[in-house]
Amino acid sequence: MQPFRTTRRVEFCDTDMAGIAHFANFFRWMEAAECDFLRARGLSVKIEWEGQLLGFPRVAATCDYAKPARFQDVLDIDVIVDRIGTKSVTFAFEFSCRGVKLASGKVTSACCRIHGDNQLEAIPIPASYRARLE
Amino acid sequence: MQPFRTTRRVEFCDTDMAGIAHFANFFRWMEAAECDFLRARGLSVKIEWEGQLLGFPRVAATCDYAKPARFQDVLDIDVIVDRIGTKSVTFAFEFSCRGVKLASGKVTSACCRIHGDNQLEAIPIPASYRARLE
Amino acid sequence: MQPFRTTRRVEFCDTDMAGIAHFANFFRWMEAAECDFLRARGLSVKIEWEGQLLGFPRVAATCDYAKPARFQDVLDIDVIVDRIGTKSVTFAFEFSCRGVKLASGKVTSACCRIHGDNQLEAIPIPASYRARLE
Amino acid sequence: MQPFRTTRRVEFCDTDMAGIAHFANFFRWMEAAECDFLRARGLSVKIEWEGQLLGFPRVAATCDYAKPARFQDVLDIDVIVDRIGTKSVTFAFEFSCRGVKLASGKVTSACCRIHGDNQLEAIPIPASYRARLE
Repeated sequence: MQPFRTTRRVEFCDTDMAGIAHFANFFRWMEAAECDFLRARGLSVKIEWEGQLLGFPRVAATCDYAKPARFQDVLDIDVIVDRIGTKSVTFAFEFSCRGVKLASGKVTSACCRIHGDNQLEAIPIPASYRARLE
Repeated sequence: MQPFRTTRRVEFCDTDMAGIAHFANFFRWMEAAECDFLRARGLSVKIEWEGQLLGFPRVAATCDYAKPARFQDVLDIDVIVDRIGTKSVTFAFEFSCRGVKLASGKVTSACCRIHGDNQLEAIPIPASYRARLE
Repeated sequence: MQPFRTTRRVEFCDTDMAGIAHFANFFRWMEAAECDFLRARGLSVKIEWEGQLLGFPRVAATCDYAKPARFQDVLDIDVIVDRIGTKSVTFAFEFSCRGVKLASGKVTSACCRIHGDNQLEAIPIPASYRARLE
Repeated sequence: MQPFRTTRRVEFCDTDMAGIAHFANFFRWMEAAECDFLRARGLSVKIEWEGQLLGFPRVAATCDYAKPARFQDVLDIDVIVDRIGTKSVTFAFEFSCRGVKLASGKVTSACCRIHGDNQLEAIPIPASYRARLE
């Protein structure tokens, strides 16, 4: 499958005193890239779906860093669906800049129904939502 | 070994529209807890050490989430040195709140010399620094 | 009135590539200091109060910066209630480190009722809430 | 003068438990919009300029909020140079979404020479830099 590609410019506030992008930002960027991917399919991480409010809280996240990203770098972020389980979905991400790989990561989210009091209940991914992911 | 424990209160800006602490914050909190651990030993993630400037850029980070953290929760964060390699160190973290485990993670950093232009050169962890870690 | 004082350590992720705390963090820190102040009075920026859910979205924020804050600096943050209007409250903040003033700011929030769909309705500050602020 | 316009999508991690974009993000967005403006003129907030390293630490920042921004909103951000002093520059920003004004703000920065140890020295804005700003 052709990966979905989105881009992102490293901003000044993303850097730290080591002069590079702070590592925690890659997790924000993975989520934003996932949202771009979902948006292109009419999906979202928080969405009204067939009469219920769905959310996808993260249950695992990991990132390996090969090279630093720096201020004003434009990052290419490739997104693929790594695995769709009954109640969870894992996305994999590759970060590169001008063809050089910087980092790769994965994020797994649980499909949850969000109740009025913000309580979360894990549920199977609705078939119609799953169909759009695949 | 008795883990080092530090605490952290979840702030309003740490939450997201799902009503829980955003998952990327746990990586910031792991770093802050690591810094607390290091400070107690006279160490730091960026420090003048025996005439050279050392930094510890992260090469891998992972977190598994069991339960959400919410606004104003006071998190207990246990820190242990998971592994000390020649050129890298891995810390492991356990997050809990009122005795209930919320998340656990690991962060691996490479020992680097920081040159004047913010370029990073991986070097072995100095023996005197390592001695304080152990 | 004696100001309420809270403290805050500048963390690695708060810094930017200029080697100082990024200016936007002072706004997060003002909010956290306001929450500390409120907590000491049994109040909060989002709270069930006499049967309705109250929130305090910010309508104005300003900060003047005199000197930079740096990694590991412990900031003293003085909080005072600057003005209580019918429907809004303004807090003023002074940041200092080891007795040297770094910055000062103000944040004005509107008292709102939060409806189930996260819509906000401006309302007068309830008398019982106001009494605790004063 | 025609304002410079840039856009920005509100991301999930920009929201808070009130279901709206957290107010401190507007300061990050103003800085990013300023950088977009500067980039279009071959300038930057941290740049090698005629043999010295320039930076523009913020000395004042203010924002007034009219309406909340929400997840996935695409914000239009208009940037104008509000005032150029001898040693400082003020940018003004207008945030809107689908033609509705959300917020407006100003940020003043001091022109500084950055020395090797990250110490900052205020200097007059170089004439050649100023010419590109105007």
